[in-house]
This record gives sequence, structure tokens and C-alpha cells, in this order.
Amino acid sequence: MAKLGKNRYGKSRVRLTRVTRLADRHVLHEWSVRVLLHGDFETSFTEADNSKILPTDTMKNTVYSVARDSKATTIEEFATELGDYLLARNAQVTEASVEIEEKSWERVSVDGAPHATTYKLGGPELATVHASRAQGGKWDLISGIDGLVILKTTKSAFTGYIKDKLTTLKPSTDRIFATRATAKWEYAMSDVDFTSVRERILKTLLGVFAEHDSMSVQHTIFDMGKAVLDAVPEIANIQLTMPNLHCLLVDLTPFGQENPNHIFVPTDEPHGYIEAMIER
Amino acid sequence: MAKLGKNRYGKSRVRLTRVTRLADRHVLHEWSVRVLLHGDFETSFTEADNSKILPTDTMKNTVYSVARDSKATTIEEFATELGDYLLARNAQVTEASVEIEEKSWERVSVDGAPHATTYKLGGPELATVHASRAQGGKWDLISGIDGLVILKTTKSAFTGYIKDKLTTLKPSTDRIFATRATAKWEYAMSDVDFTSVRERILKTLLGVFAEHDSMSVQHTIFDMGKAVLDAVPEIANIQLTMPNLHCLLVDLTPFGQENPNHIFVPTDEPHGYIEAMIER
Amino acid sequence: MAKLGKNRYGKSRVRLTRVTRLADRHVLHEWSVRVLLHGDFETSFTEADNSKILPTDTMKNTVYSVARDSKATTIEEFATELGDYLLARNAQVTEASVEIEEKSWERVSVDGAPHATTYKLGGPELATVHASRAQGGKWDLISGIDGLVILKTTKSAFTGYIKDKLTTLKPSTDRIFATRATAKWEYAMSDVDFTSVRERILKTLLGVFAEHDSMSVQHTIFDMGKAVLDAVPEIANIQLTMPNLHCLLVDLTPFGQENPNHIFVPTDEPHGYIEAMIER
Amino acid sequence: MAKLGKNRYGKSRVRLTRVTRLADRHVLHEWSVRVLLHGDFETSFTEADNSKILPTDTMKNTVYSVARDSKATTIEEFATELGDYLLARNAQVTEASVEIEEKSWERVSVDGAPHATTYKLGGPELATVHASRAQGGKWDLISGIDGLVILKTTKSAFTGYIKDKLTTLKPSTDRIFATRATAKWEYAMSDVDFTSVRERILKTLLGVFAEHDSMSVQHTIFDMGKAVLDAVPEIANIQLTMPNLHCLLVDLTPFGQENPNHIFVPTDEPHGYIEAMIER
Repeated sequence: MAKLGKNRYGKSRVRLTRVTRLADRHVLHEWSVRVLLHGDFETSFTEADNSKILPTDTMKNTVYSVARDSKATTIEEFATELGDYLLARNAQVTEASVEIEEKSWERVSVDGAPHATTYKLGGPELATVHASRAQGGKWDLISGIDGLVILKTTKSAFTGYIKDKLTTLKPSTDRIFATRATAKWEYAMSDVDFTSVRERILKTLLGVFAEHDSMSVQHTIFDMGKAVLDAVPEIANIQLTMPNLHCLLVDLTPFGQENPNHIFVPTDEPHGYIEAMIER
Repeated sequence: MAKLGKNRYGKSRVRLTRVTRLADRHVLHEWSVRVLLHGDFETSFTEADNSKILPTDTMKNTVYSVARDSKATTIEEFATELGDYLLARNAQVTEASVEIEEKSWERVSVDGAPHATTYKLGGPELATVHASRAQGGKWDLISGIDGLVILKTTKSAFTGYIKDKLTTLKPSTDRIFATRATAKWEYAMSDVDFTSVRERILKTLLGVFAEHDSMSVQHTIFDMGKAVLDAVPEIANIQLTMPNLHCLLVDLTPFGQENPNHIFVPTDEPHGYIEAMIER
Repeated sequence: MAKLGKNRYGKSRVRLTRVTRLADRHVLHEWSVRVLLHGDFETSFTEADNSKILPTDTMKNTVYSVARDSKATTIEEFATELGDYLLARNAQVTEASVEIEEKSWERVSVDGAPHATTYKLGGPELATVHASRAQGGKWDLISGIDGLVILKTTKSAFTGYIKDKLTTLKPSTDRIFATRATAKWEYAMSDVDFTSVRERILKTLLGVFAEHDSMSVQHTIFDMGKAVLDAVPEIANIQLTMPNLHCLLVDLTPFGQENPNHIFVPTDEPHGYIEAMIER
Repeated sequence: MAKLGKNRYGKSRVRLTRVTRLADRHVLHEWSVRVLLHGDFETSFTEADNSKILPTDTMKNTVYSVARDSKATTIEEFATELGDYLLARNAQVTEASVEIEEKSWERVSVDGAPHATTYKLGGPELATVHASRAQGGKWDLISGIDGLVILKTTKSAFTGYIKDKLTTLKPSTDRIFATRATAKWEYAMSDVDFTSVRERILKTLLGVFAEHDSMSVQHTIFDMGKAVLDAVPEIANIQLTMPNLHCLLVDLTPFGQENPNHIFVPTDEPHGYIEAMIER
């Protein structure tokens, strides 16, 4: 006998460009939205009964219709507004989850000033949010940054580790530290200024990464997380994932050349993977 | 006060090609391995003490060294063998997780026969396993298939769904059903023939997908999962994720042409997302 | 003084799924079409005069409308039919170019027989065509295969090459030969059966690749091309591009293990690049 | 009879991170290099004779060895230095081609000042160069920018185009203009300051894109190119490729909502493709 276990459905990659036309400038947002619903959908699986199924095409329409009238200026506000809309109108839904990614569009600088209506895509990093709420419950919000690619050319060492019979790595007191960092944080309070929180977190992450005398990726992750918790009382915790994108020093001795930390091979694979939650 | 919460680290994208040289033919496997460890690593974060850190470079070496002597013929066997090796030699590790993906190399057919030493890359689907074990515990094994791209040109309908003020989708009694399916299953017993299980699951998934009179993606997922549980007693459950990669019928009426399910626009985004666990 | 030089415009990534409903089975094609036009477009650049510009959106519509009534069964036939349509109706166009890529959908096998209406995506290789014609001229056709990923585990050597002061590569008499091959061929005659040509070329490429005692990628490319010209009189030449996707033998001697061509690291970068035209 | 036609070979994706350690700061460059050689290689194809083949592995070593001693600060200088090295030592080579892409690393700003040793990856655009030279000849240099993603929210129209029976596009006097621009330029003189040229070209492209009252992509391409030629006497011409990454206005009238250029769907495919050379 087979029976239905946990299940959910929704719409992914609903892409949205929104242009807010202010008096002196336009404001551009580009979002990619995913909506996932849990609920009373069993008969659609077991009896071919779609009467409780909100089509995913309608979810897509809902994203656009709600965005049109929304006053939201952040992905956090829009995610919860969209989820509230869906939960209020669909009693068969027990829980809604909304995930949004925002691209890093930056104003083009023309003659030294940010242009009112023209943008350039910045770095690969995305602003993210994952908002979920059960019917009658409160919103769980996890905000984040995904894919922040950063590199420091010094102040990074790795020594004193376990050496077993399969260890060939040489200790290093000065290596390149490159990563594609992902951060996720939960909030310690409501009525938060999401934009201000996000800006302070990014600033703190970059500042500590730059200045830290790193003894390992773990060591730097912890100091980055601790500094963020100090600087941003609005958040309860921060999880950091920082793969180690190794830059390998090239051995030039066969060619009679020294290589005093000058020429490296950057690699994508294999890569170290380090992840930690830092909490209060 | 900041403190360390959940954390783990390891090595990702350790790629491995293994050629087993039998008397009459060679056997090719290409794997990508990820190792992640949980354990007593707190002082590396908080005190710059790496004395309990097995370098991720050593994990990479371990993959290759263990693979050299291994008799494993499946990713399930190799994942547990690799994990056992690491757990036995690292008391500071409380739990090891090993994930492996295998590419779909197929023997080239020459003059109607499979060639002994030559392969061609097949479809985008990957064979997967996620194996995890705590020190002193038993292995949790989740095997799977990732990215199986399939399409049926008929026997797919979607009608009878909720129509609200934002619904514009027209009911369809005959549409294309295209998906990039992912399956994951857990085992109901030990001493399983992993290859045989995998082959029967794939055969059953494809057969039901082809023949099913689908009333929705949900409807087909459930029947596929139910059939797999019937055909493969070795497994306890199967989770299926089947995004709906919509093929949109092109409206040719502005050009005075009918389009009786002949010309479609295939799309990647937005896409429906349907996921369910089917259990015994 | 600036003046306009060579220019062209058109539409890329016009994707098309076509289902041909025969009595006993359906036939599926998935194509991605690019149309590029050369012509009398100078005033659109220099005088903001769009009166000779066929919108790229109309080109997209043309792909779908022509596909609806087309009897073409190959990308070669459809490319020229589409180009003929555009050239006949747009006197301002001096030359049209149509490129099409076709995905490798294969019928699913159910109970040992190919299924009438269900497909699975095969390998990453694409069938390609680039067709171009000037007003009043004849079609230039270049057909091809793009991204055929193949690997042989033996019968590949590389010795006797130049050794200079920067050479560290060791000669090998038995190495893995892996590549992502691209082929392009021109026709020696008209009224060709494009499907038959394509099948014989692929069969010949795979057969020679498998059996050839390779002394270098160059050596194998030439023998593959020569065999294709022998087997397929309809074509005038074939260009082959075969990057060398190196599989590096892992050095296990630090761990006291031999590695007799058993364990390799497959790599994507850097990769060798070898390209040659073979002509009659 | 088959014979060898045009051929070339070399090494692609030779990646290089170079850290120049100045007194007050470090300078980071990340390059991906491709070397391709034409020459007297026929016997490697036809007689399995590798005696004139410089291994591609040696080309990779050459990139690193030359980079170690190089004073080059631009990809243009390094490309020609590397090519000169190979041509001088390989008489069997008749022509060398070197292509380099540089990633957009930017200094992180800490406390309002650019940090001496820490970088963040900027936009997706790459600085590019393609340098080629025959033995005894002069360098042909084509510099460029690849993948500059820019968007303007206004000052873009498209009207007055051809309307045929397949045209459904509505004229627009105010649309979003988004593109992923590629530029390539050749030099009109030698002894050029490559960095200064590159900076002025980018500045001019962005400035004109922002301010131009666009009547079509063609119209804007020409004005951008013309302005670059005016601003940068060092170059002879500039080729611009600007795909039109359409942002489609969402039709909200079924939901009783107006959409005055507020909510759009950004799309990657299909996309317009417009390319032109602007010359003196």
C-alpha cells in the first residue's frame, strides 16, 4: 500500500522587473520569485481531483498583480505581502513559503554622479529572502546574501592542522583567501528596517574579511559572524557558508624561477566547504 | 556575546574517473564526491586552534587513495567505505556525510555491439547518493536520480482546478508534459543490490510516465511513486520532484492559422514545481 | 567622421517544439533558431529611420508561422524554407542567415520497444545547421554536430613531441582520450538526404574514434575525417574540433600505492584545443 | 583522397591569478589565457609524427613562466609578450594567436577607502584581447569588453518599422532598453596607453547609453560608436554587439489593473541581436 507523505507545490523563477517612477529618478528592482504551498492537496494525487488546486499559472499572475499595487521596497516586505494575499484567499493552504532573489543592479555613474534612469549589473551576489508562514501563524523570515565573491591577497594562514599518512598539504603562513560567501540571518525583533540591516551586515562582513588575521576559514567565519552580531542588534543569528576557492601557487622551480606568492592558478574544483551558524 | 552554533566542513567537487580493466573490457565510472564532517571543531573557530582539523586537501587525497584499493562498484558502496575510513581514523569527527554524483556514461555502439573501451556521455541525469553516519551509528542512505529530462506529447490533461479572479489559464485535455525529474529513495532493508534497485526504479518511472493518463503532475507523481514501491520491495519510500517545464501552444490565429497541438514554445522559466514523498 | 561598417541584426534563441502526429506515433523536434539579416539598414543607424526594419519580434512570429505549414523534417530543410520566406518578402534584405540547433530527444524504451509518444533527453550533443543565402544566390549549407562528449580508456598515446626548457609533460603510451567534439561539414552535391548523411557521419566518427590507435589528437582527428569523407560521398569536407579534456593520473606514490592507469582526475580546464579541416 | 586543410591547436582556459606586491598595496589580476598556433604540423595529422608539436601542456607552463618575469600591466602587453616568446622559440609556428579575458575584480571599500589587499568581484563583464602575429609580421590587436549588462528605464522608443501580416508587435514610445553589450576595437596607432583607452571607451559607452534618446537599438549603437571614435583617437574602429534583452510589459487588464510601465517580465530568450562596426 502506497500513501502520500510530505508534499508541496508552487511556481519557481517568476521573474519581475519593477520600475518605480519618482519625480527625480527611477528605481529599478529585478526579482525572481518562488512560491511553494503546503495544504490539503491529497485528492489531487490520489483521486485526480484538482478542485483544491490553485494553478501555478495563477500564482504567477498573483505575483504580478500584487506587485503592481504593492508599496513594498524590500524583498522581505514583498515576500510577506504576497504570502499574506495567498493565505487569506486559499483556506486549503496550510502554509505558504515565498523565496525571492534580487539582482545587484547599480546606478551607472555619469559625469561623476549616479544616473537617474540607467543601471549596470554589479557583482554576482544576490539579495535573498525566504519567508514562510502557517495559516494563523507568524512569519518566519530568513534574509541573506548569496554568492558574494571576495578575495584577500594576504593575512591568511593555515598551519597546525592534523597530519596523517594521506596529508600532502604544506602549511602556509601567507596564502590567498578567496571565497563565494553566502550569509543567512534571522531577526531578533519585528519592525526592522530591512535595508539598513542588510547594508550594515554587508559592510561588516567585508570589513572584517579585509582586516582579519586569518588562521583558517573557520577562524575568519567566526570573527565575521561575531562582528555582525555586534553591529546589528536586529538579528538573532547569522549562518555563513564560505567555500575555499583555492588559488594554487605555481611551482616554477623546474624552470629555475622563484615564485614568492606572485603567480597562482585559481580553481573552482575541488573546493573546501566551511559552514557555521553564529548565535547570540 | 556570540557563540558557535551548528557547523560542518569538508571538500566538494572531488572529481574522480576510475577505469577498471577487466579481461574483455574496461569499465568506466566518473564520480564527483563531497565529504562533510561534523565534530569537535569549536576551537578552530574561536581560538585559531587547528589541531583537530583534518585539512580538506587531505580529504581529497583520501578519496583517491581509498578509491584505488576499493572493490566498490556502486556509489552507495564507495560512499560508505569512504565514510567508514574517515570515521575510523578521526575520533574528533562525530558524523560524516558523503555525497556522490555519477555521470551517465554509456558504451558506444560499434557495428551493433557495445564497445569494450569507448564511451559517450548520455543524458543529463546523474545517479546520486547521500550517505551519513554518526560515530558508532548506522549508515543512513538516500539514493537518487537527479535531472532526468523526459517529455510526453499526449495523455496529459489539467482541468477542474480553482478559478479565482487572477486565473487566466485555460483548461487543457491534451497538453505536453515535460519535466526534469529528481527522485530520492531510502532503503527498507540492508544487503541490497543497489544496481538492480536503481535499474528497476528507473524502468518503472519511465514506464508509468509514458503510459499514465495524467490529470495533473500531482496525479502522475503519485502513480509513478506507487508503482515504484510495488516493483521494488527493497525501498521504504520515494520522493519525486517534477517541475512542470511548460510548452506553450503558440497562438497562430492572428496569422489565420490553426494550431492543433502542433507548434509550441518550450520554456525554462517560470516553471511549476511539484514535490511529494510516497511511502508505504 | 564616423561611418557605419558591416552590420546585421536578427533574433536569437527562438525556441520551438514541434509535435507531428502520425497515425501510429508522434514525432518530436525541439529546435532553437537564430535569424540574422544583412541589408539596407543604414538609415536606422544614422537617421533613426526604422522604415526598412523588420522587427525581430516579427522574425520570431515568422519562425512559428512557417513551422506550422512546413513539411520540413530536418533542420536543413527548415532553415532554407524559413530563409526563402524572409528573402522573398523583404527586398531590403541582401542576405539571410539561419542557424538551428536541435536537441537530442530519444524515444523512451518501454517493455523493450520505443514508445510512440514519450521521449527522454539524450546526450549533450546538438545537431546544427548554418544556412546562408544572398538575394538571387544559392544556399550555403554547413551542417554539424556540437558537443559530442566521448571518451576512450585506451589506444591513445602521446610521445615524440618537442621538449624545451618549459616542458614537464611525461610521454604516455596509454592514456585516456576524452573530448567534447564538434563537427561541421559542407555538401558536395544538392538533393542530399540530410538525415542519412548525419547518421553515417556520426556512426563513422564514433567507430574510428573507438578503434583508432591514436598517436595524438591530431592523428585521430585526421583519421576520423578521412573515414567520414570515404563513407559519405555527399559531403565536400569536414571540420573537426576536439578539445583534449585531460584526465590526469593521480600520483599515489606518497601513500605507498601504485596507480596503473586506474584512478584519474577529470578536468575541464585548462584543456587542449585541436581543430582541423579535412578536405577531398 | 583526403587531405589536411586549415588547422590550428593550442591550450584554452589557462587561468592565472597574479598578485603584484607594491609597497603600499597589492594589485590583483585574474586572467584566462588561450594560445592557438598555426604552423607546419601536417605530419602530426598524417604520419603520427609529433616531432614538430609543442605540447599544449608546455604552452600552459609557458604562460606561468612568462607571467612570472613579465612587467606587463595590461592583457594587451602580456598577450604580445607571450606570443613573442612562443614565436621566437618555435620556427615551425607560422602564426600565433593569444586571447585573454580578465575578470572585473574591484577593491573593497573599507571605512570609505579602497582596501590595499582585498577585492570583490564586480560585474559580469570581462576585459578581452585577441592578439595575433605571423612570424616576421606585426601584431594585430583587438581589445574589447565582453558581457557588459546595462539597462535604461526610459528614453527608448521603437516605432515606424515594417508591419507585415506576421507583425503583432505594438509600437512603443517608452520602453526598457536592456542589453548585454560586447565591444571590440582595433588601434589606429602603436604606443597606446591601453588602460587609458579602455577607461575612456567604457566611460563613453555608458554615458551615451544613459543619455541617448533611442529610436532603436541600431540608433543607439551608432551614437555610442560615434562618440567613442570622437573621444578616443587611438582607435580605428569599434564593433558593438547589443542583444535586446526584452522586458515585456505585463498585461494586467484582465485583473482590472493598469500597468503604466511599472511591472515587466525580464526575459533571456528569445532576444534581439544587433551588431555593427563603426569606423572612421
